[in-house]
Amino acid sequence: MVNVAIVGGSGYTGVELLRILSGHPNVNVTAVTSRKTAGQALADVFPSLGGTAVGLDGLVFEEPDPTALKERAEFFFTAVPHKTAMEMVPFLLDGNGRVVDLSADFRFTNADVYSKWYVPHTAPDLLDESVYGLPELYRDRIASARLVGNPGCYPTSIILAAAPLLKNNLVDPDTLIADSKSGVSGAGREPSQTTHFCEANDGLMAYKVTGHRHTPEIEQELSLLAGKDLTVSFTPHLIPMSRGILSTVYGRLAKTISTDELFETFQAFYQGAPFVRIRRPGMLPHTLDVRGSNFCDLGVFVDDRTGLVKVVSVIDNLTRGASGQAVCCMNLMLGLEETTGLGQAGLRP
Amino acid sequence: MVNVAIVGGSGYTGVELLRILSGHPNVNVTAVTSRKTAGQALADVFPSLGGTAVGLDGLVFEEPDPTALKERAEFFFTAVPHKTAMEMVPFLLDGNGRVVDLSADFRFTNADVYSKWYVPHTAPDLLDESVYGLPELYRDRIASARLVGNPGCYPTSIILAAAPLLKNNLVDPDTLIADSKSGVSGAGREPSQTTHFCEANDGLMAYKVTGHRHTPEIEQELSLLAGKDLTVSFTPHLIPMSRGILSTVYGRLAKTISTDELFETFQAFYQGAPFVRIRRPGMLPHTLDVRGSNFCDLGVFVDDRTGLVKVVSVIDNLTRGASGQAVCCMNLMLGLEETTGLGQAGLRP
Amino acid sequence: MVNVAIVGGSGYTGVELLRILSGHPNVNVTAVTSRKTAGQALADVFPSLGGTAVGLDGLVFEEPDPTALKERAEFFFTAVPHKTAMEMVPFLLDGNGRVVDLSADFRFTNADVYSKWYVPHTAPDLLDESVYGLPELYRDRIASARLVGNPGCYPTSIILAAAPLLKNNLVDPDTLIADSKSGVSGAGREPSQTTHFCEANDGLMAYKVTGHRHTPEIEQELSLLAGKDLTVSFTPHLIPMSRGILSTVYGRLAKTISTDELFETFQAFYQGAPFVRIRRPGMLPHTLDVRGSNFCDLGVFVDDRTGLVKVVSVIDNLTRGASGQAVCCMNLMLGLEETTGLGQAGLRP
Amino acid sequence: MVNVAIVGGSGYTGVELLRILSGHPNVNVTAVTSRKTAGQALADVFPSLGGTAVGLDGLVFEEPDPTALKERAEFFFTAVPHKTAMEMVPFLLDGNGRVVDLSADFRFTNADVYSKWYVPHTAPDLLDESVYGLPELYRDRIASARLVGNPGCYPTSIILAAAPLLKNNLVDPDTLIADSKSGVSGAGREPSQTTHFCEANDGLMAYKVTGHRHTPEIEQELSLLAGKDLTVSFTPHLIPMSRGILSTVYGRLAKTISTDELFETFQAFYQGAPFVRIRRPGMLPHTLDVRGSNFCDLGVFVDDRTGLVKVVSVIDNLTRGASGQAVCCMNLMLGLEETTGLGQAGLRP
Repeated sequence: MVNVAIVGGSGYTGVELLRILSGHPNVNVTAVTSRKTAGQALADVFPSLGGTAVGLDGLVFEEPDPTALKERAEFFFTAVPHKTAMEMVPFLLDGNGRVVDLSADFRFTNADVYSKWYVPHTAPDLLDESVYGLPELYRDRIASARLVGNPGCYPTSIILAAAPLLKNNLVDPDTLIADSKSGVSGAGREPSQTTHFCEANDGLMAYKVTGHRHTPEIEQELSLLAGKDLTVSFTPHLIPMSRGILSTVYGRLAKTISTDELFETFQAFYQGAPFVRIRRPGMLPHTLDVRGSNFCDLGVFVDDRTGLVKVVSVIDNLTRGASGQAVCCMNLMLGLEETTGLGQAGLRP
Repeated sequence: MVNVAIVGGSGYTGVELLRILSGHPNVNVTAVTSRKTAGQALADVFPSLGGTAVGLDGLVFEEPDPTALKERAEFFFTAVPHKTAMEMVPFLLDGNGRVVDLSADFRFTNADVYSKWYVPHTAPDLLDESVYGLPELYRDRIASARLVGNPGCYPTSIILAAAPLLKNNLVDPDTLIADSKSGVSGAGREPSQTTHFCEANDGLMAYKVTGHRHTPEIEQELSLLAGKDLTVSFTPHLIPMSRGILSTVYGRLAKTISTDELFETFQAFYQGAPFVRIRRPGMLPHTLDVRGSNFCDLGVFVDDRTGLVKVVSVIDNLTRGASGQAVCCMNLMLGLEETTGLGQAGLRP
Repeated sequence: MVNVAIVGGSGYTGVELLRILSGHPNVNVTAVTSRKTAGQALADVFPSLGGTAVGLDGLVFEEPDPTALKERAEFFFTAVPHKTAMEMVPFLLDGNGRVVDLSADFRFTNADVYSKWYVPHTAPDLLDESVYGLPELYRDRIASARLVGNPGCYPTSIILAAAPLLKNNLVDPDTLIADSKSGVSGAGREPSQTTHFCEANDGLMAYKVTGHRHTPEIEQELSLLAGKDLTVSFTPHLIPMSRGILSTVYGRLAKTISTDELFETFQAFYQGAPFVRIRRPGMLPHTLDVRGSNFCDLGVFVDDRTGLVKVVSVIDNLTRGASGQAVCCMNLMLGLEETTGLGQAGLRP
Repeated sequence: MVNVAIVGGSGYTGVELLRILSGHPNVNVTAVTSRKTAGQALADVFPSLGGTAVGLDGLVFEEPDPTALKERAEFFFTAVPHKTAMEMVPFLLDGNGRVVDLSADFRFTNADVYSKWYVPHTAPDLLDESVYGLPELYRDRIASARLVGNPGCYPTSIILAAAPLLKNNLVDPDTLIADSKSGVSGAGREPSQTTHFCEANDGLMAYKVTGHRHTPEIEQELSLLAGKDLTVSFTPHLIPMSRGILSTVYGRLAKTISTDELFETFQAFYQGAPFVRIRRPGMLPHTLDVRGSNFCDLGVFVDDRTGLVKVVSVIDNLTRGASGQAVCCMNLMLGLEETTGLGQAGLRP
């Protein structure tokens, strides 16, 4: 059993980590921090996590004191805002600590790119060793990493959709468009006008139409896959649902291919990846099929009339798009099966 | 006062027509037909339409008998499925009848295109005189028409977004992508597995990813605007909301333009159109702002990094995308103000 | 045309007032105040209210300056929080001003009751002349009032359900239970953890199970109807919808009666009330039938097995439960038809 | 490992059984039947259940052939409609088969009561040995049963709320009122007008206000607890959410008691029950806290003003109200820990 601490446990990614780890057979959660709810019992703040059947009953939120945490755990999830993460992570790594960071702070290979889209990076040296935590692309490197930068929710859905296209030179890399639709939990647990129930229910909108911060992260990984620098037109939309992302990825075909061949190409690319499911031609991915699970479901479509390929990708933004993927990375880092504690089917309906 | 009959009044476009016409100052609804609910009082089938304050209290659904209808009304809305519409419309037009048809049967200029995507057309001669009922493009022709083919919901949202781009040669016409998100009422009132609450709630999916029947309708109108035949990549998505469509339209810029200039171009194009509102740069259209109203709100965005233009378009699929637009056409055909009976603000929240 | 000002126009009752008044034939809205959005154009804060078809285009939010308001309007809606209302209303009434107050401040006949449940009352003398704005009970008194205390949303739904029972001595007045279910807009537009989309979507809870402030208001009116002091057990629930209240009111029958007789009793009681619709025996009220309208729909049920009567009452909490009812009171105060500007059918779906 | 077959696997309780059993450590699902989807792969009908991580990948729906099923399994869940269940169960029990039936057919001790509310009972002799599958009341009897009648969803939520009140003589048993609110999945997976997304979304209604079939089931169990025949006034409501039931149970206090004492009484009553959580005084149960889990959360409230007790009870209607409870009964029947395979925390948000 590994002792695990969650730094920043009162947001949606924190509670999702706790939900998943409560059923993990190789892990003890020994500490959960939150400035906002310090001193309160976990089960009072999140009643869904209480009860003897769940097994997290003793936990109490505490102030984030790195020294104390280091004594109680050897593995850390940091689910705090960007900037706070890069301030804490160096200390947590010290000695033989290992960290999966769920913020954006360790996702980039180039500190300048991070600094341009976020804030100046204060731990740029760690970017050399941190690994981008997408198991389908970096399984081996994750397994030997001390520090993993857990991918963003939108990038996860888009990179998994586009990777087989770019790696197989099926599309013109300068024509990629990602139209993404996300549930409201992606905006975090902090109340705001936009996330007020009555402002989101029964309607939708696009937002950050030209400059969402996930853009450079998507472009970093897709450029690596394409073997050349590319830009992606990324547009997020806010959908009246709690969880889930559906990304529709468009690209201009670089060669003639049938939908069946495309399907086979995707199957081959994701051979051996337990958490990617390619829907057979004609079948439609639905976010409900992955709700609460670590799966990414992909549907592939060739549009003969327009010469475009369309890939439809669905994930649960909190599970595969954040905490489930983080646990998957932890499994790899601990030498466990990738699927350990993550075998739950989606909650549908 | 004009006597109006609604043929096919028990679907969602029918009840929406009745809702709008109940507040129209120049119209008497004298008959409503429905095979399914014939014999039942309107207010029993749709209690929202009952009560003395609403003023439709006496209406009873009846079997569709064209001869009887002709005696009771001079203006007709046909809100029946395609094929049924083209069977009934010739009879309703006979004499001095006028018709706005809400099906696809009279939207096409070319019977072959219709026949390819739907069924063989049985009244192709009427296609010469029928007018596509989009007031912003065909205001004058609608005013003098006997027969209007009311636009589809998706096409309305997409054509209004793309028209100023094509008319002003701002985009390469061979690069248009329309990613559309619709509420569930677009699928009609007939129950199905897909529209079961638990299959649609809290999740979303893409559907008919490469061959939705609205595609040729969109292409007909955009080709006319571009002055050349073009294809559009159109992908619809089903969103967990009752009403509303948001279409995100992408195109590759054919010239350098700023967002401010784009905004001004759109304002100029829709000068004098009471039901199109261009959101100022930086502001985001939301479907809730148009719910229950006849407005189309547009947001325009230049994405310098990728060389694309993005136009975000929102409508209420039942109002602007069907029954409200039909009433707007009727107003023009009757020589009334375009906005008569349609001045309601959107229901937000 | 009457000049009307709305004091406190940036909350949900404010925007609903503006939506309704935008279509009112006898009213000019000359001023809208809001400390929070002062200086911003109405159509920027609430795009649903913009556009030439709506006709509120010139309005700009302003700071609430009573002196300036008095010069611009003769009729006032105060849609500010309790306490603020009773501070402003005396000034607005001064001269020949008339006011419909949407807060709780002028709903009570007894200042002590108000002070016990809210805060000490600072304008108790006005309680003698203020009229409880429920047209079905106080139509004549409202017509001659200077000041109306507009009823709360829950009380409106419950009093209309229980009034015929108590007035006709059909139930034991000491056994009334009101189980109410409200949409989230009842909690106001201010963001909070409880109203965050992800905390309310796809789930529900009871709240303030024993001490909601609407209790004394309900008891005041039902005691008057019963002719004796009574208590009501009132329990509100938060439902994942934007608008609407459904109250299920239970009482022990004081005499044997059939459902048909109960139906007739309710019909007789609400004879001539344009905004109350009694559903025929066996038919079920639905909040969607009243969404966006001023109707209250009632379903009546005798439960022979248990000796209870059940009345199911539905309203739109923002329209009939707040702003629609306020406009209805204004109509009566101005000598207009009760239904003026309020004849919209419910938005269903 | 026990071989288990699911008879009737294509409805919502069927897919929920499969979801839960896919993670159960002591069970092999060897057969799933469905007339409607026979011949189709499970993962094609329910993609959420596919993928190597889930482990149900080989299953194909088959026609229900009892002889074939008996050869493949020793434990059966029947998730078919009432009447079909009592036709199949005798055969499945034959030999050493054991059955948890999720229909109403084996919930009643008295065949006449069943016959009055449903259809004539065709296997009345089995009612003597079948056990009502509520572990908190019948743990030992379930453990030794061959046949369990799994409780209805509404009854589960109501009986757990009322049992401590009646057993401790805290309320007058002739005054019980249960006001219940259910998600739409309770109506089953078959499409209907009522469950169409647009008819249920963003609104609510009461239904079967005086004669829902769960009434006699509730009364049977509460009468046993009270030690006398009683009636309950039960009113169900349809809420715009997929899963969850909240029941508000009212009763007139038979003695003076504080909320703290009531809380302690409930704690004592449910001592040792792993799936009942009593919320501390002042805290509010929410259906989201139990979504996808087998918990029942209870909140207890004394209303001094009216002399009533209110108990608020929340469950997931598909898990605790159907399939989770069925698995819990299976665990007991197999001599396993009650919580085996059921330790998942609720999916919130």
